[in-house]
Amino acid sequence: MPTLQEFIDDSITNAPAAAIELSEPVPLDELPTPALIIDLDVFDKNLTRMQQYVQENAMGLRSHTKMHKCPIIAHKQIAAGALGVCAAKVSEAEIMRANGIMNVLITSPVVTPEKIRRVINLAAQAPGLQIVIDDIGVANLFDEAARNVAIELGVLIDLDPAMGRTGIETGEPALELGKHIKNDCNNLRFDGLQMYAGHCMHIEGFDKRKEKYRQVLQSGSETKAMFEDNGIEVPVFSGGGTGTFNIEPGVGLLTDLQAGSYVFMDIEYRDIGGQGSEHFIDFEPSLFVLVTAISKPQQRLITVDAGFKSFASDKMSPEFRDVEGVTFHFGGDEHGIIQLTNPSRELNLGDKLPMLTPHCDPTVNLHDYYFPVRDGVVSELWPITARGRSQ
Amino acid sequence: MPTLQEFIDDSITNAPAAAIELSEPVPLDELPTPALIIDLDVFDKNLTRMQQYVQENAMGLRSHTKMHKCPIIAHKQIAAGALGVCAAKVSEAEIMRANGIMNVLITSPVVTPEKIRRVINLAAQAPGLQIVIDDIGVANLFDEAARNVAIELGVLIDLDPAMGRTGIETGEPALELGKHIKNDCNNLRFDGLQMYAGHCMHIEGFDKRKEKYRQVLQSGSETKAMFEDNGIEVPVFSGGGTGTFNIEPGVGLLTDLQAGSYVFMDIEYRDIGGQGSEHFIDFEPSLFVLVTAISKPQQRLITVDAGFKSFASDKMSPEFRDVEGVTFHFGGDEHGIIQLTNPSRELNLGDKLPMLTPHCDPTVNLHDYYFPVRDGVVSELWPITARGRSQ
Repeated sequence: MPTLQEFIDDSITNAPAAAIELSEPVPLDELPTPALIIDLDVFDKNLTRMQQYVQENAMGLRSHTKMHKCPIIAHKQIAAGALGVCAAKVSEAEIMRANGIMNVLITSPVVTPEKIRRVINLAAQAPGLQIVIDDIGVANLFDEAARNVAIELGVLIDLDPAMGRTGIETGEPALELGKHIKNDCNNLRFDGLQMYAGHCMHIEGFDKRKEKYRQVLQSGSETKAMFEDNGIEVPVFSGGGTGTFNIEPGVGLLTDLQAGSYVFMDIEYRDIGGQGSEHFIDFEPSLFVLVTAISKPQQRLITVDAGFKSFASDKMSPEFRDVEGVTFHFGGDEHGIIQLTNPSRELNLGDKLPMLTPHCDPTVNLHDYYFPVRDGVVSELWPITARGRSQ
Repeated sequence: MPTLQEFIDDSITNAPAAAIELSEPVPLDELPTPALIIDLDVFDKNLTRMQQYVQENAMGLRSHTKMHKCPIIAHKQIAAGALGVCAAKVSEAEIMRANGIMNVLITSPVVTPEKIRRVINLAAQAPGLQIVIDDIGVANLFDEAARNVAIELGVLIDLDPAMGRTGIETGEPALELGKHIKNDCNNLRFDGLQMYAGHCMHIEGFDKRKEKYRQVLQSGSETKAMFEDNGIEVPVFSGGGTGTFNIEPGVGLLTDLQAGSYVFMDIEYRDIGGQGSEHFIDFEPSLFVLVTAISKPQQRLITVDAGFKSFASDKMSPEFRDVEGVTFHFGGDEHGIIQLTNPSRELNLGDKLPMLTPHCDPTVNLHDYYFPVRDGVVSELWPITARGRSQ
């Protein structure tokens, strides 16, 4: 019988991570639905486009694995030139580390004894590990834990972009924490600042988003200057996302872009609008949920086999990729009800149809495998290894 | 290399299902959060209470596994007296069957060739299997598939309770399908009717719910009479749920109650109100997500480590079990932001707190294990074996 910690360790080590090659390629139409599919041609384009952009603009890409939860995709991002990845939680970082991703930043504060122990174990195996801290007491706990195993732990100070989620207040409080880490925490290495303005990513309209984001980052810029005026170098400034990727160069603060969604895109990001375009089209949707029409209870309705358990339901509804003149309503956990107002094609029982996802991160987190599609067929499955690793 | 079907079959057979006993019991405060916990004393009471109620009222309980996704819990329900279980989808039924649950009704229509093949395979192993059908063309497909392997397949006709999700129209269209199955489909055995009025379950106020539900079931009652007048016996009438469990006896139509949520309960069900009580208190909440306070970015805010990836977000927000005077706002995928308006106790970094879940089914579907708690400790883990089995 294992202890809980032994069981968790085993489950990390043994989580399926390698691609499962199929002996016979499967046409899209024969997949069991709901199935999370990736259009590989678009996916490849998105990978390349973002990497080129950050390189041309003197930034590094630290792609966020909380979005895709998949070591295979993380390896592809690093192969394309990303300097490392982000993980939202300790268990996500453990999955990445167990699958050969050495350079991970955990972007959420960790405060409890059992998680601090796990972070320290991880750092002892993977020197590239970085964490964020937003509290002096927690800095002391990490310093002591790192000292006990004689390692140096890389730390970013997490700044609150006046969003009230995580992070210490900018200005004096942040500087005080910086001095404390620099001067009093011998086993913590101050690597820089994180300021993730999540509340700016989905502001509709490029100009409005740009204006608000620049305003919000002003206090980060001032805080960085305060650190430097006090003799504390700030080698890394980490933050930003898909919604601000092309605003960052104008701000000139970021060294590491934490973008995640650019790989897959979703309806939410499409609808925020791009620079000079109604829709955000710098990246194209490569992620879809394939659904099947299973019932036609009334004349103007058809029901598909995907509801709250297949699509994120925090804000928007999914949309068909290729059918217009219809509206999706969630029909509970297992179903979507399609209103056939003026459908651009006939829909029949048994039809399999790809749907654009509302919010990619929590949608991915519902599925166990990606079905990557090229030329209409699936040749392998990619396990979503860190699915459910929210601890 | 496997074919896709071989891979799926293996993943069903090998999905972890047995309880994982721990060598050392773990106190609640040492669990890695977010953790899905069950208060076993309350859970046991809910199991017994529902079973007693259906027995006293001459109904059978066919508990819905789409809610808990767990063969261990399905076995407990059957041991307590349930006549079988429901599954929402084929893959969920496969998981139940692979773990010894023989008597399963799949409550959603199945229409595609690859899923029909899987249902037939399942029926060949588990004679207790039943499906629902709401279309004549689909009845013919199943009849042919059953004939090909020389089995008889149990079928309920799914009736649309004027909800427009699944099911054939009540009255003549349903009777026509019934006659077709009875007379022309030699390998289908007509077992009865299903009418699940999902849109009635959460009507607030017992009397309002009762009135609407009785109205809705009227057409089911008339359809059943039409079947009998045409010489077609209707041994099973399946439907209902936690929200109508104590309305069914007054209607007198149901033989099999499909309730699921009664085992765990959630905020949605609590808030619909009970018979003579403001809250629905016939069953008590036994399911909680344990969260940790990880950041205190501003004076009146504290942030916990659970967001859209740990709680269902289709309608409501979670609430603390033991803390009042605070409000939870989703802070994205990974966080909840707690507004400390007038907190009934001090909340500090590192505190671990149980939260009532907004909607139990899609909440459960986010987690991999239950942590069942008795006397403040966890001694084993229960795998949520059918999590993600929405196919």
